[in-house]
Order: sequence, then structure tokens, then C-alpha cells
Amino acid sequence: MSNDILKELAAILEARKSESADSSYVASLYAKPDKMLEKIGEEAVETIIAAKNGDREQIIYETADLWFHSMVMLAQKDLSPDDILSELARRFGVSGHDEKASRNK
Amino acid sequence: MSNDILKELAAILEARKSESADSSYVASLYAKPDKMLEKIGEEAVETIIAAKNGDREQIIYETADLWFHSMVMLAQKDLSPDDILSELARRFGVSGHDEKASRNK
Amino acid sequence: MSNDILKELAAILEARKSESADSSYVASLYAKPDKMLEKIGEEAVETIIAAKNGDREQIIYETADLWFHSMVMLAQKDLSPDDILSELARRFGVSGHDEKASRNK
Amino acid sequence: MSNDILKELAAILEARKSESADSSYVASLYAKPDKMLEKIGEEAVETIIAAKNGDREQIIYETADLWFHSMVMLAQKDLSPDDILSELARRFGVSGHDEKASRNK
Repeated sequence: MSNDILKELAAILEARKSESADSSYVASLYAKPDKMLEKIGEEAVETIIAAKNGDREQIIYETADLWFHSMVMLAQKDLSPDDILSELARRFGVSGHDEKASRNK
Repeated sequence: MSNDILKELAAILEARKSESADSSYVASLYAKPDKMLEKIGEEAVETIIAAKNGDREQIIYETADLWFHSMVMLAQKDLSPDDILSELARRFGVSGHDEKASRNK
Repeated sequence: MSNDILKELAAILEARKSESADSSYVASLYAKPDKMLEKIGEEAVETIIAAKNGDREQIIYETADLWFHSMVMLAQKDLSPDDILSELARRFGVSGHDEKASRNK
Repeated sequence: MSNDILKELAAILEARKSESADSSYVASLYAKPDKMLEKIGEEAVETIIAAKNGDREQIIYETADLWFHSMVMLAQKDLSPDDILSELARRFGVSGHDEKASRNK
């Protein structure tokens, strides 16, 4: 499993910008920004409830929904998952360099 | 910027499990699971407000907080970011394989 | 406008406990407690977005939704709006007694 | 317990508008509207978690917090609990009239 999935998913979300709200769920969210933000709130609450339930499948499903809808918001604002990962890297002093270095060997 | 940051961050969160709640913010969240879940809700709302404000720095900061606290919850449940990325990959028919293939050349 | 509306609404919610989930929205929420709690989260977020939009009609509509769904939850737990009002009265040192006294004159 | 507590509390919130943010928690929320909205989100999540915990005291406490902070927001927007109660009355066809009528006897 490669984390480059976030990059691929971001490319898919970018491509949805040229589609009609009728034909694509993501495009329908771009067309209704408040609805898009409501989804972030909904999925956060569903993640919390899943965690209280201690149901692993439900936690994975709802957290994926939460990350997905926050990525739709990022795309709409012309931001990318890399902006978030950079911020996390900055905070925690991690860089991904070790791993990248080992790949380059 | 490598997405392997999620992997490095997950390793850091795992290591925090052996620390005391007094010495580490993450360990203090593990010790108070409801507080940890409240943080997911808080950060989701702060992300929504940042998006309404249209403030890019604030959006990045709050989304990073949201992803971070959801990763703390995943760690506490012995789940990892890879579980979420696999679910997203499954849904969107992406695999990271192209990139992985190109790395293996 | 009398605040006794909360009391009347609580009585309606109590009566819904004997109805089927098919015939009543409230009964359908009693039957799915997690869905009921998700609605509280959704309506809170919609209230927040309405406030950011500064749209008075929307604020009234969404706050009514929020209070309504929290009253459904209270009813399900055999609690009443009076329990909440008593707690608020306790905190703020108000009692409603002055007003009640003036009415009884 | 009289529901007129909402009216008394609304009067207190109105009076706080002339106080300084340093001397009053409510005034400090008026001065930071985003913080005020975040509190609505936080208290909604804490209410949800309290409900999942099935802890009646916690449910009362957190729901009171949720209603209180939504009332602060209403006050800031020059709206009142009566606006919300009127909306609920309209939806459910209740009016408080029976009760009011009985009081007037």
C-alpha cells in the first residue's frame, strides 16, 4: 500500500472540477460549498460515534469519508494533501527523506 | 514532499504509547479517549470555520490538526493511516501502483 | 409567544415513543440512536454555517433543528427540557419565580 | 420550574453586551465570534459523547452548555430564544395557548 494514493486521489478531485454537478458527486459538492463543509462536520461526528462503538470497520469507513471530504474542500480551495503533510512534517520534525533516500538507492 | 510522512507520523504516535500522560500531549489523549474524540469534533469545526473565512493558512493549520487528531484515534485503536488509504484506494480504483512501478525501475 | 412550547413539544415527543418508526420521523430516530446523535452534530454544523453566513432566517431554522434534535435525544433518555432549564437556572441564579409571581398576582 | 428561564437568561445575555471581554465570559465570546461558534460545535460533540456514555448528569450538563452557547450566538445576532420557540411552535402546531389560557383563568 503506497501513500501516493493521496496524490492520485487529489488528481481525480482536480479532474472533477471540469465535470457537471449532475454527473459527479464531487462536482455536486464543488457547486454547493456549504453542503461540502456540512459533510466534513457529519463525517467527523460519524467517526466519533464509530470510535465510541469500537467498531473497526466502521472507524475505517467513516475516517475515510472524513479525509475524503476534507480533500474535496482542499481541492476546491486549490490546496492539496501535500500542504497538509508539509504542515504535519514541519510540526513533528519528520521529512520522509529517510524513506525517499532508501528508495533512491 | 513525500506522503511517507503519514507513515513516519504513525510511528511517532505508536512510540507515544509507552510515554506518560504528563510528558506527552499524545499520551495525554490516549489516557482520555473522550477528550481525544472531542478534539476530532473541535478540529472539524475549526476547519469548517477556516474554510468559510477563506483563509488558506488557517485551512492548512486546522486540516492538519484534524488529520493529526484522527491519526491519534486510529493509533489508539491499533489502526493505521494505511487502513484509511486502502479504503480510499478501493473506493476510487487507485492503487499507487504506477508510482510504485516507476520507483522499482 | 409562550415558552411553554418546550413543554408541549416534549409531550409530543413522549407520545411518539408508542408510534412505529415507519409512520413518524421522531420514532424513526428513537429506533436508530446513532442516527439521532448524528443529527445533533449535523444541525450544530448547519447552525454554525448559518451564523457565518449571517442569514437570520437560516440561523432560526437551523437552531430550531438543533434544539429539536437535542430534545429528541433528551426524550429518549427520559430527560426533559426542564432538566436543562433547571441546570441553566442553577448556573445563572435565575429561577423564573419573579415572572411566575407576577403572573399569579 | 418555569420555562421563563430562557427569557431571563436572554436578558442576562443582552446585558453582557455592555461589559468588557475581560470581565465576562459571555462578553469575551461576543468579542470573538469564531470562538463562539467553535463552542457550539464543541458542546454538540460533548453532548453526543455524553449520550453515547449514557451518563444522565453529563447529558444534562453538556446539553445545557449547548443550549447556552447557541443562546449567546442568538443574542449576538439580535435574535432571541422566542424566535426559535416560535419556529418550533409553527412546525409542530403547538402554541402554548392552552397553558396560557389556563393561567389566565
